[in-house]
Amino acid sequence: MYPDILTKTIDSFKKFNGIGEKTAERLALSVLEMTDEEVENLASELIKLKNSIVKCKVCGHITDDELCNICKDKLRDDHIICVVEDYNSVIKFQKTENYNGKFHVLNGVISPIDGITPDDLNISSLIERLKSTSGSKEVIIALKPSIEGETTTLYLKKILEEFDDIKITRLSYGIPVGVEIDYLDSMTLDMALRDRKDI
Amino acid sequence: MYPDILTKTIDSFKKFNGIGEKTAERLALSVLEMTDEEVENLASELIKLKNSIVKCKVCGHITDDELCNICKDKLRDDHIICVVEDYNSVIKFQKTENYNGKFHVLNGVISPIDGITPDDLNISSLIERLKSTSGSKEVIIALKPSIEGETTTLYLKKILEEFDDIKITRLSYGIPVGVEIDYLDSMTLDMALRDRKDI
Repeated sequence: MYPDILTKTIDSFKKFNGIGEKTAERLALSVLEMTDEEVENLASELIKLKNSIVKCKVCGHITDDELCNICKDKLRDDHIICVVEDYNSVIKFQKTENYNGKFHVLNGVISPIDGITPDDLNISSLIERLKSTSGSKEVIIALKPSIEGETTTLYLKKILEEFDDIKITRLSYGIPVGVEIDYLDSMTLDMALRDRKDI
Repeated sequence: MYPDILTKTIDSFKKFNGIGEKTAERLALSVLEMTDEEVENLASELIKLKNSIVKCKVCGHITDDELCNICKDKLRDDHIICVVEDYNSVIKFQKTENYNGKFHVLNGVISPIDGITPDDLNISSLIERLKSTSGSKEVIIALKPSIEGETTTLYLKKILEEFDDIKITRLSYGIPVGVEIDYLDSMTLDMALRDRKDI
């Protein structure tokens, strides 16, 4: 139905996260509406993006430099480190605009089924980082509430407990803002009950 | 918040039809998950797509050759030509899989406000095409039901009426399948009434 190169480009767009047939088609057809210059710019940006984005030496977040913007930021509190699974979590946290500490990206969670052990994660650099930071620190473990996330949280807790000057916390579980209790799954409701607060 | 090249790529994706901030962000971040080879392939596909897609010499549809797949198709009826505004319409028709005639892409509709006159449209080639096709023909005018679409339809009707052997039709207007009458705009309902059929 389409010229070959159009079909090929649609197939390539389908490889993007969350992009289905229809959007892939719309994206590929959009290219035809662009100027030659716009298409060339986009093509070179894609390659540059892929080649120049590396992991921050300190926290593992994405960056185009040795250190990421967050690690470079002198206004952020070095003594609070939020441990997350991947850079998408960092981006989500950044959007809340309320967190002023630093991050540490594990690059996954412990998952025996997928063969991911603690050694595969960015944990030893977290320990180094904590050791080289003087004073009392807080590590907020912000992993997903799944078996793998919980396993990783408990693993980190066990390791970090050996330090005297580290307070270990996790995110609270509970009812998402704006959601009616009727629509909640029972596990979330159970967690909201267990994490209940005095008022 | 993002490394510069990431922000740039997100901005480029926002130029695509129907792509907002969130999807643009998801697309750009997806690039980071791809292999170098996948990104290079995509980049070169985009440039190849833009450079190799041209307009069919006969009907004006998109193609990577002199003639488009539809004009090349010997099984299609040369004597029925569906006149559409752009290649997106051709794609839509192709998806119904029920039409076995050919197409003619006007590349727009008459719009005095936007300075688009009949001379700007792919009309003279339609006339040539009809003149060089022997026997009785049907031209189905399938333009959008707007003032510009109607104006163009009437203009084409006037021109084509001079040929003895051309039957001129237009698409029927009416109630879209699956839509309740309650939810219809009054113009559509009016058109559905005027286009009513014997049962």
